[in-house]
Amino acid sequence: MNSEYNVSRYLVSRLHEIGIKHIFGVPGDYVLDFLDEVVAGPIQWVGNCNELNAGYAADGYARINGAGAAVVTYGVGGLSILNAVAGAFAEQVPLIVISGAPASHRRESGVMVHHLISNYYMQLDIYKKITIDAAILTDPNTAPDEIDRVLRNCIARKLPVYLELPADIALSSCRKPGELFYDEPVTSNEDSLKECILEVAEKINKASNPVILAGVELLRFGLGRETLKLVETSEVPFVTMLNSKSILPELHPQFAGIYRGAWSHESVRRQVEDSDCLLSLGVWITDLDTGMFSTNLDNRRMITVGGGKVSIGSHYYQQIQLDDFIRELTSIIQPRNYLASHPSVSFQSKKPFVPEQSCILSAPRLYECVDFYLDDNMILLAEPGDAFCAAPEFHIEEADNFIVQSYYCSIGLCTPAALGVALACPEKRPFVLTGDGAFQMTAQEVSTLIRERCPAIILVINNDGYLIERVLHEDGPYNDIQMWNYSRLSDLFDGGDFVIGIKANTEEELEHAMKIAAKEKNKLVIIEACIINRDYSAGLQRLGDTLKPKK
Amino acid sequence: MNSEYNVSRYLVSRLHEIGIKHIFGVPGDYVLDFLDEVVAGPIQWVGNCNELNAGYAADGYARINGAGAAVVTYGVGGLSILNAVAGAFAEQVPLIVISGAPASHRRESGVMVHHLISNYYMQLDIYKKITIDAAILTDPNTAPDEIDRVLRNCIARKLPVYLELPADIALSSCRKPGELFYDEPVTSNEDSLKECILEVAEKINKASNPVILAGVELLRFGLGRETLKLVETSEVPFVTMLNSKSILPELHPQFAGIYRGAWSHESVRRQVEDSDCLLSLGVWITDLDTGMFSTNLDNRRMITVGGGKVSIGSHYYQQIQLDDFIRELTSIIQPRNYLASHPSVSFQSKKPFVPEQSCILSAPRLYECVDFYLDDNMILLAEPGDAFCAAPEFHIEEADNFIVQSYYCSIGLCTPAALGVALACPEKRPFVLTGDGAFQMTAQEVSTLIRERCPAIILVINNDGYLIERVLHEDGPYNDIQMWNYSRLSDLFDGGDFVIGIKANTEEELEHAMKIAAKEKNKLVIIEACIINRDYSAGLQRLGDTLKPKK
Repeated sequence: MNSEYNVSRYLVSRLHEIGIKHIFGVPGDYVLDFLDEVVAGPIQWVGNCNELNAGYAADGYARINGAGAAVVTYGVGGLSILNAVAGAFAEQVPLIVISGAPASHRRESGVMVHHLISNYYMQLDIYKKITIDAAILTDPNTAPDEIDRVLRNCIARKLPVYLELPADIALSSCRKPGELFYDEPVTSNEDSLKECILEVAEKINKASNPVILAGVELLRFGLGRETLKLVETSEVPFVTMLNSKSILPELHPQFAGIYRGAWSHESVRRQVEDSDCLLSLGVWITDLDTGMFSTNLDNRRMITVGGGKVSIGSHYYQQIQLDDFIRELTSIIQPRNYLASHPSVSFQSKKPFVPEQSCILSAPRLYECVDFYLDDNMILLAEPGDAFCAAPEFHIEEADNFIVQSYYCSIGLCTPAALGVALACPEKRPFVLTGDGAFQMTAQEVSTLIRERCPAIILVINNDGYLIERVLHEDGPYNDIQMWNYSRLSDLFDGGDFVIGIKANTEEELEHAMKIAAKEKNKLVIIEACIINRDYSAGLQRLGDTLKPKK
Repeated sequence: MNSEYNVSRYLVSRLHEIGIKHIFGVPGDYVLDFLDEVVAGPIQWVGNCNELNAGYAADGYARINGAGAAVVTYGVGGLSILNAVAGAFAEQVPLIVISGAPASHRRESGVMVHHLISNYYMQLDIYKKITIDAAILTDPNTAPDEIDRVLRNCIARKLPVYLELPADIALSSCRKPGELFYDEPVTSNEDSLKECILEVAEKINKASNPVILAGVELLRFGLGRETLKLVETSEVPFVTMLNSKSILPELHPQFAGIYRGAWSHESVRRQVEDSDCLLSLGVWITDLDTGMFSTNLDNRRMITVGGGKVSIGSHYYQQIQLDDFIRELTSIIQPRNYLASHPSVSFQSKKPFVPEQSCILSAPRLYECVDFYLDDNMILLAEPGDAFCAAPEFHIEEADNFIVQSYYCSIGLCTPAALGVALACPEKRPFVLTGDGAFQMTAQEVSTLIRERCPAIILVINNDGYLIERVLHEDGPYNDIQMWNYSRLSDLFDGGDFVIGIKANTEEELEHAMKIAAKEKNKLVIIEACIINRDYSAGLQRLGDTLKPKK
C-alpha cells in the first residue's frame, strides 16, 4: 500500500482500528475506488447477493464483534440496505454504512445521473433519521475529522452511522490518521451516584424477596460480566427477557426464568410481580417483550436504571450511568445467602431428546430436539415467527450464544446474519432457526455462506407459510407460500461436498439430521423440518391468545 | 361482500376502479384486516417472497397496466420495499404503496411496538420524499377523500403515492365510494398554443432535414399513438432514446435509430446533430441516455417540448401540454414527402441467426440470437448491465414490448418485474434478459412466477460476476460472485413440469434453447447462457471507453 493517505485509505484504516476485520456489501460504480482500497488493505471484503442481505450480515457481525460495516453504491444500494439499518437503529446495533455517491461536480450541477432519486441530498436526509450521525464527505481536508466523529459516535452510542463518499473524493489526498481519540465516556455525578447506591443497597438488603431484571442494554453495552458479579455478590435471583436472553448464564442457580408479563411461566411471573424490590437494569418495555404490555409491576417497589438515570419509586437520580451503578452497587451490596436457602430452585437442566419411533414431527418436539443439540459452541439465531416464540425455552449459557431481533422483528434477518456471525466468531457455529416464509426472503445468502465456507446449521421449519400470521388473525390465502425443496439448495448454489441437505419428517429423522450436523462440524448443514397440520409452539399459542380478536 | 363500507373496502374498491386487477405484497400483522378485504374483493392477491420483489413486480405491472399497487406491513415492510418506490419515483411509474401501521392508540401513546423504527411518523416522512402524495389515514371520516386525492395524484402525475393504514382504521366504517372524479387534465393556454404551433410548423416546414427526438415522457403518458400520427403526417424522420426505445415502431421506414450522444451509431449522431430543426418531445437528459452528456446539440436549432413548456431557440412558451402540442401540430403540419426521397434509408430488418457449428458462445452472438427470436408477443425486460447495453440494437416493434430502467438502474428489477408484466398482459410473454449478478439479487421471485404459472423466458447471461463493473473500472475481486447452476432453479422452487431449465455453452445450444422456449409457450423457460472470457457487447465497450480512467 502506498504510504500516502487518501480519504478511502483513511477510512479503511480507521475501520480496521475500531475492530472491523470483514466488510460486507455489493459493488457499484460510484464506490469502486473505495473498494480498491478495501481489498488492498487489512480488511476482508465479503460480497453479498444483495444490499439488504449485506446489511443483515453486518448486523449479525456487529452484534458479536462490537461493530460491523457494509458498503453500497448510491441510491439503489443506499435504499436497498435501508431496512437493515433501521433495524440496527431500533435495536441499538453499531452498524456503519458507507455509500458511494456521484462526483461533486455532478451534485453541484444537479444533472440527472444513474441511481439518483431526485436530489443529491435525499439519501443523506433519509439516513439522518435512522442513524446517530451521518455525513457526506465533501472535502478531503475535513473528511478525516468527520470520519473520526461519526465512528466515535457509532462506538460510544452503539447505534448505526452513515458516511457518503463522493466518487471524486474517494482518492483525494488527506492527512494521515493520528491517534484515534474516543470520546471520554459519559461519567456519573459522584454525589448523585454515592447517595443513590446507598439508598438502593439499603432497599435491597432490607427486602425479603428482591429480584434483578436484566435487560437488553446490558447486552448492547457489554455489561454481562459486571452484572454477573453483582448477581453473585448479592445472591439476588435474576430474570432476563427475550431480548436479553442468556446475557447471564441460564444454568445459573440464581436464574429464575424469562419474564414477559402474562406470557411468562406462572412461577416467573409471581416471583417478579410479587417481589418487594425489583431492580430493573437496562430494560426496554416493548410489546413482544412484555406480553403485549401485560406486565403488572408496582412502581413503588421498583428501582429502574437506564438512560442515564435511576428511578426509585417516585423519585429519581440523574447523571448515573448503568456501568457505574452496577460496579458501585456490587462493591457495597451484602450477600443474602439466597443459595443456601434456595437450593437450585430454578435450576432446570436440559431434557434428553429420545425420538419416538416413526412419530411424525410436532412443533414442540422439534424445539425439544433443537434445545438438546444446542451446545456452547453454537450461536443460535432465532427468526421472528414460531422460532423466536419457542426460543425462551432453550437453555443457553453464554451471552453471545443467542441472537434475536425481538423488537424490530424483520423476518429474513437470520440467514444473512449467520454469515456475519460466522466471520466474527469462527470458533463458534451459527445455528439458524427459521420459518419457511422468513427463509425465502433472503435465501440467496446461503450462496455466500457457501462461498465463505461458513459451516452454519440452518434449520428451516417448513410449517406451510406465514404461520405466525395464521395464528394471530383469522387465516387467509395471503399466508400461503410456494413450497420449496429446501434440502436441495446446494444443487442451485453449487455447494458440492461442503453442503449437506437433509429433510426430516419424523422425530427419528430429525434426530439423525441433528447428529449429522453435530458430527460434520466443518460443513454447512441445511435441515428442512416438516411440521404437518401447521403445528406450533406453546409460546406462539400465548401470542395468538393475546392478539387474536375474540369471537 | 357486506354492502356496508369500511376504509379497507373503500380503498379496494377505488383501486379496482382505477384498473388494479392484481395487487402484490407480503402480509404482516398490521395489514391483515386490509388483506382480508383484498381477498374478499375483485382484486387478485399475489404474494411475493419479499417486499422489494413485490415493489419491483408492481413497477413492472404499472408500466404495462397504467398503475400498480403493493401492500406491505409497517417498518420492516415499508422500508424493505423503499428502493423499488424510489425507482418508480425517479422513472415516473405510477406505483401505489399501502402500508399497515400500528393502531392509533399506540401511535398516540408512543410506546415501543414491534416494527417501529423510533417514531410513528418516520415512515411517512421518508415516503413524502419519494412520492407525489402520501397520507396516514387517521380518521375514517376523512379517509375516503384522502384516498381519492392520493390516487388521483398517482394517475394524473404518473408517480408513486403512499397510503398508511393504521390497524384500527382498516375496518372502521366509512362512506360509500361516490363517482371517482379525476382531476381536470391540465390544459394549455389557447393563445400560447396557437402562436407556438404556427411558429413550430413553419420552422419544420422550412427545414431541410428536421428530426423528431421521441422521449420517455411520451411512453409514460401514453402518447405513442398520437406521436406516430404526427410522424406519419409530417413524414419527419424520428429517433428514440434507450429509455423511450420502441415508443414508435422500430421497423418504421422513418425510424433513424437510437440517439445517445457519442454512443450513437455515427449515422444517427450525424442525422440528429446536423439537423437544422430538432423537435425534442418529452426527453430526459440523463447520463446513460446521452452517452455521459456527450450530446452535441445546437440550441438555436432545437424545439424542446416538455414539463408544460416549449422552448424554441432562446425563447419559450409556457402553459403548453405535450399532448395538446402533438395533436395541434399534427393538424397543421405539412407532409414533406420524405419517404419518396428516402426509400427505407434506415430500415434494417432482423438478421437471421445461423449458429456456427460447435462455436463457443460470444456475447455479440448471444445478442444476435436473442434479437432474432424476439417477437411481437414478447415483452423484453433488459436488466442494467450488459443486457441494457446490448438492447439498443434489438428490433422491437411495439411500445409496450420493451422495459428498461435506464435512469435509476436498479439491478435485480427485471425478474420480479416480469411477474407484474405477465399478470398485466397475459396475452404476451415476458422475456427477461439479465446478468448473473443482477439475477442473484432477486432470484427467489422465480418461485412466484412458478406459483402464478407465468410462462416467462428468463435468460441469465452467465458472464462471471458483475461484468459491467469490470469494464467500467480496473477489475477487482469484489466483482466475483458465487457461480450458481441457474438451470437447476426449478429443483429448488419445485417447478415440476412447468419449468424447463437449459444451459447453453455454444451457439447451437443457444439456438436449441431458444427454439424450445419459442415452442413451449406455456412453460417457464430458464436459459443459462455461458459467456466465457468475460466477453461483452459493443454497447458496454462504448460505456467503458467513456468512463474508465485513462491510464
